Amino acid sequence: MNAETLLLKGCRFVLLCAGCKPLVDTSILVSNGVIEYVGDNPPSGSKTGYVIECGEHSVAMPCMYNAHTHAAMSVLRGYYSDAELHDWLQAMWFVEHRLSSREAFLGSLVSGIEMLFSGTCGFMDMYFFPDEAAEAARRLGLRARVGPVIMGDVDPYRAVEEARRYARKLLGDPLVGGAINVHSIYAAPLEAIREGHRAAVELGVPFHIHVSETRREVYEAKKRYGVFPVELLGKLGALSENTVLVHAGWIASWELGLVKEKGASLVHCPASNMKLATAGHFPLYEAMESGINVALGTDGPASNDSLNMFSEMKIAVLLQRHSYWDTRVKARHVLRAATTGSAGAMMLPRGAGTLQPGAPGDIVVVNGVTPSALPLRRDNLEQVLVYSCEKCTPDYVAINGRLVLSPEKKPQLLEEAARAAKQLNEFIERIGPGKEPEPPCSPRIACRGD
Amino acid sequence: MNAETLLLKGCRFVLLCAGCKPLVDTSILVSNGVIEYVGDNPPSGSKTGYVIECGEHSVAMPCMYNAHTHAAMSVLRGYYSDAELHDWLQAMWFVEHRLSSREAFLGSLVSGIEMLFSGTCGFMDMYFFPDEAAEAARRLGLRARVGPVIMGDVDPYRAVEEARRYARKLLGDPLVGGAINVHSIYAAPLEAIREGHRAAVELGVPFHIHVSETRREVYEAKKRYGVFPVELLGKLGALSENTVLVHAGWIASWELGLVKEKGASLVHCPASNMKLATAGHFPLYEAMESGINVALGTDGPASNDSLNMFSEMKIAVLLQRHSYWDTRVKARHVLRAATTGSAGAMMLPRGAGTLQPGAPGDIVVVNGVTPSALPLRRDNLEQVLVYSCEKCTPDYVAINGRLVLSPEKKPQLLEEAARAAKQLNEFIERIGPGKEPEPPCSPRIACRGD
Repeated sequence: MNAETLLLKGCRFVLLCAGCKPLVDTSILVSNGVIEYVGDNPPSGSKTGYVIECGEHSVAMPCMYNAHTHAAMSVLRGYYSDAELHDWLQAMWFVEHRLSSREAFLGSLVSGIEMLFSGTCGFMDMYFFPDEAAEAARRLGLRARVGPVIMGDVDPYRAVEEARRYARKLLGDPLVGGAINVHSIYAAPLEAIREGHRAAVELGVPFHIHVSETRREVYEAKKRYGVFPVELLGKLGALSENTVLVHAGWIASWELGLVKEKGASLVHCPASNMKLATAGHFPLYEAMESGINVALGTDGPASNDSLNMFSEMKIAVLLQRHSYWDTRVKARHVLRAATTGSAGAMMLPRGAGTLQPGAPGDIVVVNGVTPSALPLRRDNLEQVLVYSCEKCTPDYVAINGRLVLSPEKKPQLLEEAARAAKQLNEFIERIGPGKEPEPPCSPRIACRGD
Repeated sequence: MNAETLLLKGCRFVLLCAGCKPLVDTSILVSNGVIEYVGDNPPSGSKTGYVIECGEHSVAMPCMYNAHTHAAMSVLRGYYSDAELHDWLQAMWFVEHRLSSREAFLGSLVSGIEMLFSGTCGFMDMYFFPDEAAEAARRLGLRARVGPVIMGDVDPYRAVEEARRYARKLLGDPLVGGAINVHSIYAAPLEAIREGHRAAVELGVPFHIHVSETRREVYEAKKRYGVFPVELLGKLGALSENTVLVHAGWIASWELGLVKEKGASLVHCPASNMKLATAGHFPLYEAMESGINVALGTDGPASNDSLNMFSEMKIAVLLQRHSYWDTRVKARHVLRAATTGSAGAMMLPRGAGTLQPGAPGDIVVVNGVTPSALPLRRDNLEQVLVYSCEKCTPDYVAINGRLVLSPEKKPQLLEEAARAAKQLNEFIERIGPGKEPEPPCSPRIACRGD
C-alpha cells in the first residue's frame, strides 16, 4: 500500500467514467492508494506527497484494463503473422517448447511497458510462466491476474490443486492476484473445468477460459456432447460471477441468456479474432443491452500484434458497426468495456475503471497534443479517446496511487524495453525460425521478381 | 527542387519496397530530390548537404501516401461520431456551411501534421477549399493532389472548366498537383463525369470519384440507369488509367473486370466504411490478384477519425480476413497498397512508394524503440510495420529530398498543431454544436444515471 498522497492539479478535462460528462479544470487527490477527492478545490495541508501539474492540454481518464492476454508472447510478435491458423499454431508451439523463464520474463516486461505506454494499468494473463508475468507486473507497478494454465492430458485434480495453491498464495496482494486459467473445453479435461471453477469461487478469483472462439469448436462440442460450448460450461456448473468467457465469437443467442442468468463476464478480443480469421460475431450490443458485463482484451501480442487498448476500442466499434450495418455501438460502449467492464471481469477493487472518490488510485493522464487527437473539446472527448487516440501516450500513469509512468521515467523504460527486445531477438536467432517464415508469394502481384 | 544532398547513414534496416527483403546497416543518398544510391558504401566527396545518423534501432521505409481524404475536416473530428449516417451528414453540413477558408486551412494543417507524424508523405484531397489544402501541404512540405469539388446542381461545363483551369495552373509543381474531383454519380451531373474525366486525361491528372460506397447507391443506380455505378462510369467513358475509384465496397465482380480492362485504380478506406456502417466487401484479394492497382486511404478525419496509415493498413488486413474467413491477405498486400498503390493512384513520379535508386526522395525513418513494435528483426519487419506500428512516429521524414520532420522540428510542429486546434475549437464553440451532440443513451447499460 501507498501511504503518500498524489495530487493531480488542474487537469484540463477529467473523465470520471465512460458516459460521464467531462469535468473541466479539475484536480484529483489520491491518498493511501484510493481516490479521495475530485473537484476544483482540493483539501490542502494533508500529508506530504507528489503534486503534479496536469497541464493545459491534459485529459485525466480512468485506467483501461486488458482482460485477456498472453503477455510473454511478445517474443513471438510478427512471427508467422501471415500464416493460416494451423501453421501459425505450429510455429508458436515450435518456439514455445524452447522458451525458458528468462524469455517469458523479458517478453512480459516488453508487453508491460507497451501497456503502460498506452494507458493500460492491468492485465489478465494466461500463460505457462505465471511467476514471470507477475514479476514483470510488480517491476512496473501494473495490476495483473495470473495463474498456471490447465491444459492437455493432465490429472485434473492435481492440476487444479496446483492452481488453487498458486492463487491462494496471492490473496491479499494489492497488485497481483490469482486466476484459475483453464485453456478451453477442447484442450483440458472437463473435470478440470468443474473443479477449477469450484476453486475460483472458493478463493474469490476469476475462472478464465477461452470459449466459442471458432466455428469448429462449436460444431465439435455439439457433435461430442450434444450441446454448445457455453451450454456445456453451464452443465459442468462452471458459470458464475467468477466466470470470464473469452472470445465468444460463435456464442449462440440462447447461450447469452445463460451467461446473463449466471452473471458471468464476456471478453471481446476483436483484433485477434479478425487477424486469425475466426469470423463469427461477438454480440456486444445484445450482451450489454441485457446487462451482461462485457470486457475488452487484446489477446496476445503474437495474434494481434499490439496491446494497445485505445486501438482495440476503435477496432471493436468498427467491427461491430460492420456486422450490425448500423451505428448502434457507440464510443461509450467500448470505453465502458475497456474500463469498468474489464475491471469487473478481473475482479479488481470496487470502483476500478472510474475516477469516482473511493475508487482505487488508477489514473491515466493523456497529453491532448497528440496530432491525431486534435481538436479536442468537452463535447467530443469520449469520441476522440476512442476513435483518434491510438497514438496517445500518457504523460502520467498512477496505479494504486503510485506514479508508475511520468515524463522522467519514460527514457529508462524505453531503454529497458529495447534491452529486453535485444535479448529476445538473440533467442529467436539462436533457435532459428524453424523454417523460412515468409508467407507463400501469392497473389503474384504482391511478390518481388515474379 | 532541392539541390542539396541528404545522406541517411547506417540505418539498421532498410525496406526498399513492400515485399522486398530488408537490407541491414545500409545508407541512402538523395540528391536533387531523387534517391541516388542505396548500399553500405555511399559515394563520398559529393555536394555539401545534410548527413543524418539513422541510429541503432532505425527502420528506413518508403513513404506511405493517403490516397483519399478530406484533410480540412479535422475541424469536425469526433463531432457526431456516434450518429447514424444521415444524422452525421446533417451535422457535417451544418458546420460546413459555416466554414471559412481560415478554418479550412487550419484543419488541413492539423491533418497534415498528423500525417507527417505517422509516416505519410502525401495525400489526395477532395474538399471545397483546395487552395487551403495546398497551402497547408506546401507549408509542411507534403505532397498533395487537390482540386475543386464538382458537386450538386451545377453547370457541368462551367464546373469542369474551372477544375481544368485549376489543375492546369499546378502542372509542373513538384509537390502539389491537381486532380479532377467529381463527388459521385448521385451528387454530380453525369455530364460533369464525362467532361471531368476528359479533362483529367488531357492534363495527366487523377480523375477522383467516390463510387459504390453504399448498397443504396448501387440499387439507385440500377433503378435509374439500368446498370451498376462502375458500369455507368464505363458507359460515360470515365474509366481509364487516370480514374481513381474510392470505396467500392459494393462493387460487383463483373465490374472488377471493367476496372482491370481500363487500368483504373481502386482506393480502399476500411476504417471509414466500418465506422459509417456501410457494410459491403472491398474485394482486395481479387483486385490485386487480377493486377488492378489498389491504393489505401483513410477518408476524412470526421469519419475515421484518424489519418494514421499504419493503423489503416492493420485495419485493412483485419477486415479482409474477417470477410474472407482466411488469411489470404497478408501484411505485404496492404503495405504495397499504402506505398506504390497509393502513389500510382495519385500519379506520383515513377518509383514513389519504393526506395529504389531513381525514385523520388520520399523516405520515412521509424525509430524501432516504440514499445509496441518490439522485438523487431529482419524476418518480422514487414509484419511489425503493419500489425504493431500504430504508435510508430518517424524520427525523420524526407519528401522530395527535403527533410520535413526531424527530432528538432517536432516541438514546433506540435505547438503549431495545438495552436490551430485551439482556433478550431473556438470556431466550433462560436457556431455551437447545432444540437446536443451526444448520442441517445441506449442501450441503458452504457448510460449514467438511468
